[in-house]
Amino acid sequence: MSGSTFGNIFCVTTWGESHGPGLGVVVDGCPAGLSLSETDIQLFLDRRRPGQSRFTTARKEPDQVEILSGVFEGRTTGTPISMLVRNQDARSRDYGNLAQAYRPGHADYSFDAKYGFRDYRGGGRSSGRETLARVAAGAVAGKILNHLGIHLCAYIQSIGPVKIQTFDAEQIRQNPLCMPDAEAAAKAQDYLDQCRKRQDSAGSVVECIIRNCPPGIGDPVFEKLDANLAKAVMSIGAVKAVEIGDGTKSAYSCGSQNNDGFFYGEDGRLAKTSNHAGGILGGISDGSHILLRTYIKPTPSISQPQATAGKNGENITLEITGRHDPVIGPRAVVVIESMASIVLVDALLGGMSARMEYLEKIWRSR
Amino acid sequence: MSGSTFGNIFCVTTWGESHGPGLGVVVDGCPAGLSLSETDIQLFLDRRRPGQSRFTTARKEPDQVEILSGVFEGRTTGTPISMLVRNQDARSRDYGNLAQAYRPGHADYSFDAKYGFRDYRGGGRSSGRETLARVAAGAVAGKILNHLGIHLCAYIQSIGPVKIQTFDAEQIRQNPLCMPDAEAAAKAQDYLDQCRKRQDSAGSVVECIIRNCPPGIGDPVFEKLDANLAKAVMSIGAVKAVEIGDGTKSAYSCGSQNNDGFFYGEDGRLAKTSNHAGGILGGISDGSHILLRTYIKPTPSISQPQATAGKNGENITLEITGRHDPVIGPRAVVVIESMASIVLVDALLGGMSARMEYLEKIWRSR
Amino acid sequence: MSGSTFGNIFCVTTWGESHGPGLGVVVDGCPAGLSLSETDIQLFLDRRRPGQSRFTTARKEPDQVEILSGVFEGRTTGTPISMLVRNQDARSRDYGNLAQAYRPGHADYSFDAKYGFRDYRGGGRSSGRETLARVAAGAVAGKILNHLGIHLCAYIQSIGPVKIQTFDAEQIRQNPLCMPDAEAAAKAQDYLDQCRKRQDSAGSVVECIIRNCPPGIGDPVFEKLDANLAKAVMSIGAVKAVEIGDGTKSAYSCGSQNNDGFFYGEDGRLAKTSNHAGGILGGISDGSHILLRTYIKPTPSISQPQATAGKNGENITLEITGRHDPVIGPRAVVVIESMASIVLVDALLGGMSARMEYLEKIWRSR
Amino acid sequence: MSGSTFGNIFCVTTWGESHGPGLGVVVDGCPAGLSLSETDIQLFLDRRRPGQSRFTTARKEPDQVEILSGVFEGRTTGTPISMLVRNQDARSRDYGNLAQAYRPGHADYSFDAKYGFRDYRGGGRSSGRETLARVAAGAVAGKILNHLGIHLCAYIQSIGPVKIQTFDAEQIRQNPLCMPDAEAAAKAQDYLDQCRKRQDSAGSVVECIIRNCPPGIGDPVFEKLDANLAKAVMSIGAVKAVEIGDGTKSAYSCGSQNNDGFFYGEDGRLAKTSNHAGGILGGISDGSHILLRTYIKPTPSISQPQATAGKNGENITLEITGRHDPVIGPRAVVVIESMASIVLVDALLGGMSARMEYLEKIWRSR
Repeated sequence: MSGSTFGNIFCVTTWGESHGPGLGVVVDGCPAGLSLSETDIQLFLDRRRPGQSRFTTARKEPDQVEILSGVFEGRTTGTPISMLVRNQDARSRDYGNLAQAYRPGHADYSFDAKYGFRDYRGGGRSSGRETLARVAAGAVAGKILNHLGIHLCAYIQSIGPVKIQTFDAEQIRQNPLCMPDAEAAAKAQDYLDQCRKRQDSAGSVVECIIRNCPPGIGDPVFEKLDANLAKAVMSIGAVKAVEIGDGTKSAYSCGSQNNDGFFYGEDGRLAKTSNHAGGILGGISDGSHILLRTYIKPTPSISQPQATAGKNGENITLEITGRHDPVIGPRAVVVIESMASIVLVDALLGGMSARMEYLEKIWRSR
Repeated sequence: MSGSTFGNIFCVTTWGESHGPGLGVVVDGCPAGLSLSETDIQLFLDRRRPGQSRFTTARKEPDQVEILSGVFEGRTTGTPISMLVRNQDARSRDYGNLAQAYRPGHADYSFDAKYGFRDYRGGGRSSGRETLARVAAGAVAGKILNHLGIHLCAYIQSIGPVKIQTFDAEQIRQNPLCMPDAEAAAKAQDYLDQCRKRQDSAGSVVECIIRNCPPGIGDPVFEKLDANLAKAVMSIGAVKAVEIGDGTKSAYSCGSQNNDGFFYGEDGRLAKTSNHAGGILGGISDGSHILLRTYIKPTPSISQPQATAGKNGENITLEITGRHDPVIGPRAVVVIESMASIVLVDALLGGMSARMEYLEKIWRSR
Repeated sequence: MSGSTFGNIFCVTTWGESHGPGLGVVVDGCPAGLSLSETDIQLFLDRRRPGQSRFTTARKEPDQVEILSGVFEGRTTGTPISMLVRNQDARSRDYGNLAQAYRPGHADYSFDAKYGFRDYRGGGRSSGRETLARVAAGAVAGKILNHLGIHLCAYIQSIGPVKIQTFDAEQIRQNPLCMPDAEAAAKAQDYLDQCRKRQDSAGSVVECIIRNCPPGIGDPVFEKLDANLAKAVMSIGAVKAVEIGDGTKSAYSCGSQNNDGFFYGEDGRLAKTSNHAGGILGGISDGSHILLRTYIKPTPSISQPQATAGKNGENITLEITGRHDPVIGPRAVVVIESMASIVLVDALLGGMSARMEYLEKIWRSR
Repeated sequence: MSGSTFGNIFCVTTWGESHGPGLGVVVDGCPAGLSLSETDIQLFLDRRRPGQSRFTTARKEPDQVEILSGVFEGRTTGTPISMLVRNQDARSRDYGNLAQAYRPGHADYSFDAKYGFRDYRGGGRSSGRETLARVAAGAVAGKILNHLGIHLCAYIQSIGPVKIQTFDAEQIRQNPLCMPDAEAAAKAQDYLDQCRKRQDSAGSVVECIIRNCPPGIGDPVFEKLDANLAKAVMSIGAVKAVEIGDGTKSAYSCGSQNNDGFFYGEDGRLAKTSNHAGGILGGISDGSHILLRTYIKPTPSISQPQATAGKNGENITLEITGRHDPVIGPRAVVVIESMASIVLVDALLGGMSARMEYLEKIWRSR
């Protein structure tokens, strides 16, 4: 499979460099008959847009999306949905030292080692801007999930040492740090201001909860739902760890604590007494909330001088100019939500052929 | 792609249930000309075999592998390598209560929810025994890597509260818990004896180090090397979290601490001053050791009575009989090494077409 | 994708060499709940078995299939169905001259050019015996289609210069040449006897009709139903041409002749006035019978001396001993039917996610 | 795999409808370091452009391509190459009767049967205009092949009853019918004029010769080179048959005639005494020219009144207005060349991992 394609049935192919003419995505395999408009996409894109607060870069990126195919009279046709965002901020400028330097924490050197050279402008293909294309695709996946009553909610759990203490869903989109705890958000803003003064940056943790996912979604071996969620978020630059449910904690737990018992409630429905598993057992959803936690490293572009190497054998001191987010998490929230949505839709569509009775059901309805 | 196939070029397809006639794997895409014998495979399989100590189940599973195709006169032919292991311990027995119960921490319920019914004998397709097929494939991948001088080493970092304090590679295969620290291994054995007395089980952490991997391996977007490693180990049952390099810790770090500077050493070779990144930047190896950490939940099959639900609407108390490992990690060590080997070989083979100069080089040599 | 895997959802992976321990296939993606037994498979395999008449080779190949996984209590479980046929006739013998010679019309040279060497025993992986694994998979696909009321029927249209003049479906399995015309079959048998006396072989044409396939199956661009049928049959050794409907003839026709008009019959159902298109328009089935025609070259193994080259730079005269079928077609009939069945099932399962209304229908039924 | 993606390593994803905002393609997996410009692409696109003669439609379609990504400073970077062609002629017009009618020979009905509705403007996704995206991708593949000295040449072999009698390669691009025989081209032009007067259309045959392809390209089982060529051209709308080498004729031949003997020439190089096989044996190239023949049905859009059905249960008489090519072949020539180029490049890149010695060669050169 192509390195820029994700998904088996709901196939997402992204393309584009940070400072080329534009970025975009082709979504193939979206079922026909879904109501979809550019507004649906733009709402998602706007959530990752920089320039919204003093903690995101001030560059102007209106990031207007254009749907080029696959939608007719307001509905998806079942054919590829191609979406394009032109780069606005691609003005010619001097990348001289960046072209020669291997920035710490960036893909400059590893990219050169693979391909022999690279588009060094703004990170090229390895730029965080690539995630814009994922978010456009995630908006399509999200519409399908909403239609079925499945809801995803991602938010910042911590920034540097500041963790949320309460959970108020309303808050998530009301503060620029996407924290569901206004007080923690205020503390985190103070912390980031200190980071900036020190010419430094902070790491963060993003949680994503998937509510109302029915049991039976995912596959039992390599295409486990948790395996695909792990790949999906690990494929976002700067992510260094991923957990499902209790995650790392479960490695220090006992079976008697970690096991979630099943029971039938008074309504006769099956449920679990706890959810240490995070909603997935044996790679397949179990009907509980799915809990996905993602650990993101600090922004590698910091303005303090850094010792590093150049392309041609020289050891150098690098000073990175320009404005950069002091923390990556808040802009990654919608990207994580998007990737999780894509994984879930792909698993849902794949599951349609899991039983002969489903095939017969559709067959009889033709 | 099929749910039981892993890899794009080096394609591994596993099949088989715990108590059916056998399990096996087809490895397609292995280059021609690799020296390979059943002994190579058996050595790997023996590392995951139970019955080796009092901490692994006492069932007899000789697990003799048979190579059915793809090898001629001691060398791989470039065609699919099919390997078969017959189940020896598949004697008919009474699964009555397991057939009806949804065991806590197992895939029984989620499997039923997906397919409508299941092979309930010993976990069926969701049994840990499925990993035997992965290990057979991993042995092939491991031979390729050894040939190129790349070495993988996985071991137990902790069992329950007991962590290793030293690293002695020799120890790993000398104690049944695969710990590189004899003293910690002894303590862990005590801890597991206590668990067993309490009819309980323990979680564990497995580390895998990949040494001598050259820079430039992996892909910059969805097929990132770390994303595929994450999927690979997350697709092993009971794994709940995965980290690369500093992993979760990096989310609490600062950019100035977390960034690894590059420098040219006295030998003129590029290196890094630290390895917080764990050997992968932007999804592509950077030439440092690759560090992969996997968190495994406690064995869900414990002998103490557990409250749970049955298949037909009844709440029950379940007692699981038979012997089960009190910890999963030690047998997962070779499975994790195998999955990491498969990912690495697939990325290596995929990277062969990354540059026109490689194509020309092979072209000219024809 | 792996070179030995066919299909996107209903995934068929074959393995095995002609004279190794055995051949087999893994069918992944078969829906759960299909009734399936070894007898179902054996019936298909027996149709391609040699030794049934004087026009097929006399080698003993009982070809008993064993189902190793994926079936529980008589029904498919949704997990991979692994099937194995042991080679019985793999006795050690002298392949001396075949190991060194490049047989005309065979893959010996091209295989060596690709991999550097080959398993030369009986054609190795390029042996016609590989199709046995396809037939086992085709038997599974055929069961699904039968369940839905779709019927495939393949037969010999011509052998050498002898074409069928009538169509009597009963005849197809009553004469060893699989011709639906007893008189033509008798003439073809005479012709083959002459070929054999001349130490020569004959070509043949196989037709496959798919009845009762509903409209709407297939994809509009690269995964066109006819494109996949073409690939499927072209991937059978010795096939040199493939046609849909009028095929080559349509290139000499006019639009006014070749177009099939639509009309609503008295029962209100849509039909076509003719079927030049062969049941597929724009890559998607149109509800008419699907007509697939396959042209097969003469058996390349003939016993008359042939001038050819050896492996090491020498020009030689080769005499191929042993018995070989004087015509390939009759044994290819069930292989073509199998490959067409696999393509159709894959397209059917893929089509389940074509519309949001199908997703909702299954969703609501959970 | 996604229905709009072709290829395993060199992956081509097309998107776009005939009368939407535009069409395009993403080429992923192109090796880094290939010199590439918009001019390279435009030269190919201009070869399929209509309006070049009185036998192609007069609509204005400048079809200017824009490269949006994957090329930096004139060379491919190894990342996805996205190419866009805006639709110029998408002016709003009255499609009223076409929206309701099922045109004979078109995909209107089968498309509706699959998706429930369709973008009826100009054929939507099933328009021949979709091939424009394939040609843009084919131009990239063609550049790689040229670089390696492999040359493809496609041309018209016949239009209606008029076949070429001579072969003059120079002629192919000098007459609008792409025939390598000026006299035949003149006769074919007369024939097409007659067709047009009769409000009718003609079928055609396209041949494609691949010269200088080395032996060893392709795969021995499902990914046979001929199987993929067959799929590639069969996936072009209106193609109804495909042949390799002697094709259908080989089914009427004898083994002694059809077999191509091998011999070492005076230069010590292996060659064949004839090429009935068309350059492919057992799915792998044998070093001879590869011969691919494609049979194309007459243009289904003819201006004479046709009896057909409407969408809503009514039988109608349809008159298709507007100008349409009276023959499809001449514009398909470059499309067939493009698809064959894509197949060949994909097989070449895939073959790089066929041998351990290739892996070691690249490894040592790092």
